[in-house]
Amino acid sequence: MLTQEKKQYNWKPIIRAFEAVVGKNAVVQRREELITYECDGLTSYRQRPAVVLLPRTTEQIAELVKICNKYSLSFIPRGSGTGLSGGALPLENSVLIVTSLMRQILDVDLDNQHIVVQPGVINSWVTQTVSGAGFYYAPDPSSQIICSIGGNVAENSGGVHCLKYGVTTNHVLGLKIVTPEGKILDLGGQVPEMPGYDLTGVFVGSEGTLGIATEITLRILKSAESICVLLADFASVEAAGASVSDIISAGIIPGGMEMMDNISINAVEDVVATNCYPRDAQAILLVEIDGLEVEVQVNKQRVAEICQQNGARNVTSASDPETRLKLWKGRKAAFAAAGHLSPDYYVQDGVIPRTQLPYVLQEIEALSQKFGYKIANVFHAGDGNLHPLILFDNAVPGALEKVEEVGGEILKLCVKVGGSISGEHGIGADKKCYMPDMFSDADLESMQWIRQVFNPKGLANPEKIFPTPRTCGEAANTNMKKFAGVEQF
Amino acid sequence: MLTQEKKQYNWKPIIRAFEAVVGKNAVVQRREELITYECDGLTSYRQRPAVVLLPRTTEQIAELVKICNKYSLSFIPRGSGTGLSGGALPLENSVLIVTSLMRQILDVDLDNQHIVVQPGVINSWVTQTVSGAGFYYAPDPSSQIICSIGGNVAENSGGVHCLKYGVTTNHVLGLKIVTPEGKILDLGGQVPEMPGYDLTGVFVGSEGTLGIATEITLRILKSAESICVLLADFASVEAAGASVSDIISAGIIPGGMEMMDNISINAVEDVVATNCYPRDAQAILLVEIDGLEVEVQVNKQRVAEICQQNGARNVTSASDPETRLKLWKGRKAAFAAAGHLSPDYYVQDGVIPRTQLPYVLQEIEALSQKFGYKIANVFHAGDGNLHPLILFDNAVPGALEKVEEVGGEILKLCVKVGGSISGEHGIGADKKCYMPDMFSDADLESMQWIRQVFNPKGLANPEKIFPTPRTCGEAANTNMKKFAGVEQF
Repeated sequence: MLTQEKKQYNWKPIIRAFEAVVGKNAVVQRREELITYECDGLTSYRQRPAVVLLPRTTEQIAELVKICNKYSLSFIPRGSGTGLSGGALPLENSVLIVTSLMRQILDVDLDNQHIVVQPGVINSWVTQTVSGAGFYYAPDPSSQIICSIGGNVAENSGGVHCLKYGVTTNHVLGLKIVTPEGKILDLGGQVPEMPGYDLTGVFVGSEGTLGIATEITLRILKSAESICVLLADFASVEAAGASVSDIISAGIIPGGMEMMDNISINAVEDVVATNCYPRDAQAILLVEIDGLEVEVQVNKQRVAEICQQNGARNVTSASDPETRLKLWKGRKAAFAAAGHLSPDYYVQDGVIPRTQLPYVLQEIEALSQKFGYKIANVFHAGDGNLHPLILFDNAVPGALEKVEEVGGEILKLCVKVGGSISGEHGIGADKKCYMPDMFSDADLESMQWIRQVFNPKGLANPEKIFPTPRTCGEAANTNMKKFAGVEQF
Repeated sequence: MLTQEKKQYNWKPIIRAFEAVVGKNAVVQRREELITYECDGLTSYRQRPAVVLLPRTTEQIAELVKICNKYSLSFIPRGSGTGLSGGALPLENSVLIVTSLMRQILDVDLDNQHIVVQPGVINSWVTQTVSGAGFYYAPDPSSQIICSIGGNVAENSGGVHCLKYGVTTNHVLGLKIVTPEGKILDLGGQVPEMPGYDLTGVFVGSEGTLGIATEITLRILKSAESICVLLADFASVEAAGASVSDIISAGIIPGGMEMMDNISINAVEDVVATNCYPRDAQAILLVEIDGLEVEVQVNKQRVAEICQQNGARNVTSASDPETRLKLWKGRKAAFAAAGHLSPDYYVQDGVIPRTQLPYVLQEIEALSQKFGYKIANVFHAGDGNLHPLILFDNAVPGALEKVEEVGGEILKLCVKVGGSISGEHGIGADKKCYMPDMFSDADLESMQWIRQVFNPKGLANPEKIFPTPRTCGEAANTNMKKFAGVEQF
């Protein structure tokens, strides 16, 4: 368990203060109710918070944060809790501020193409709200039917369509936030590129360490006239990888370009039976082309030809919404399907320059052989964002540690080829010990400057993002490692 | 003149220290040579620096900055000096660090679509370097044949093509910087969306207040297969404005969409004689469509129809490079041409939500009538980025102050309708007194936190961006106003 400095809290007056702000029903204290909040999507680490708060307004959050400051209590912001890097993992004696009751769409301005939402609004609701008028919200994490916009902002979430349209930070125009000291600030606005320092950009991806976003102005896009999905199957992963490079080199930017390897294909067919993915393919590519009808027709042809030139055994395509959905269904279910291959899996998230794809996939295979764990590969191929799924059994003593080691090796490989240790899942509690592999001491120190000025008491989501101590090896004797002792429930 | 706290400097040992780093030839002290550096593109304010330094490497800049720290000397970074908000305006007794000798292209990686350049590299050189291989660099300020990438980064410059492709910050992947204390840091990297706080985003647009970028990794894009420019002429500004809204509403995102009013049209025809722009048009729209040939054909047709539906008198188009260049020539020369209409002009830069275009143009006309100054309008219509050019004669006592008042009224109008006081020229020395119109005290204070941690002694480009004191009115009795006393040379 992550542990704050041992300290006795007299909870009674604190709880009374919280209740005075949000009401008794919005202060959760009962053990069985708190269990839900012990972890986020990174389920292998758990810690029960002292109390969970469910505010409804910006002003309530500001008041709650002030109370945390008064009593020097750590607070951890949480949306839907679907994050995969432990960004919403509680500390002992910490307060969870959960935005699940803040689910109002505050404003829709179709003419100027933006929408203002509360942080608890579910990602897919944004598109649902504006789709009738021919608009959509681009960032689409696999968890989009349950993850919240506040969480997306905290983790700078990506998704299938981020290849062409960019991740969350490219779609946030403005934010109202409550700072770690309880001040209410407005960052950015309703037009892009406001003057002064880009604090909106700093806040997006800050994983709750710089405060809590309470109103979010999102850019919405006009839906494309036509969309087509191609499915190409390959006898080798290398051939699929080469096709990805060639498609981009040809100047085509697909709406999305995803790759799945043989293990993932079979897992998906076992579980959701799309009956579209050939079980003997070593890799499939799913390429979505969007734009004008004429443009889609031309690019569809070009993509198919490139895949065939790289030895694709078969290329099919679908333009009607139903078949497109069917082709995507397997990809969207890939993580869940991996859960059927083995008792547990560990999903990694790293980025590499696209041209390094064949080399890195070979090296991942070598790590799989060396450590004796099967690794399924599902990823945003177009932007080099890998998601290796390491399959293991957490009931085997020491397995989690071994798997984390494999995950760490994969991240180091990403850094070695000029990539990054996170594409879209954030650093959270899970990967902070790899930050020094990517950044120098001076670089990390400059990020800490930002944290310290926003969060001088360190109460907002402590022990996340930044490594203390410096390396994973050193971490073995500290709090960081302690919470690998999984608390069962 | 802006004045630092009055202080006597013993320049001899300082100059010797500078010379030890960069050599005698790279330390400029002679009065007649310093004149060049008295102002940037905002020529109405001037101040001679004490010394100008011309380093060639990151390490030299770090050493120079350390010397400035040792002697508590303010330093002002400067690229080509084409900025329009006085971002590179010297202070008395300040040191100018000019990057004009840092003009190397350090790396070109076409496969991964990025290029690494020194800050003095001229904007248009980037495209020239990669165009043979079918790539280009998107941000294209009108000054692109002379402005430097370092200056573009400092001011987060835009340009005609930023409607579709985004401003400078969307194209900077990574930066090597020298901090205001002389540390060398690496921000970002070679893949987009690195973990940790987005310090690259904070640095871009920080106008030299957070340090000096010494190596810049830029994203390059694949050139479009086909490009077409349409010229539509209108009997009213409102009809042109309505066309802009309708084009965007139709889901078309032109590569660029520019509007010029009657005054600008005639100025341009007088000076560069494109013979393309009808002198009796109240407004023209230049719309550039890029993409696949088939896509361009369809969108060209749709844009023409939309313009005609809004009453365009004539719509012509050109796809061959020579005629396209001719159509753009007038727009690119518009600022220079305004110089022929009156002895002086003051160019404003504000942003409005696109839907407010007709209203704001009417209000600008009303201001023109009220104050008795002609105002020419040339602007990036697609993204609501206005560039009113207020024509005046600086030899008339008090005219500059009056014109600044008009400019201020225009900015307040932009803020009132939900826009911004700067689209792409930065705040610099010129607009800092309008920051409180746009940001609350708390918002401005949070920006100051960033400045203070990066720039604790305040030596890097002081008295820029942030208002001291708070309002333009109050400023009348301070240093800020003093430098309105134009020093002739």
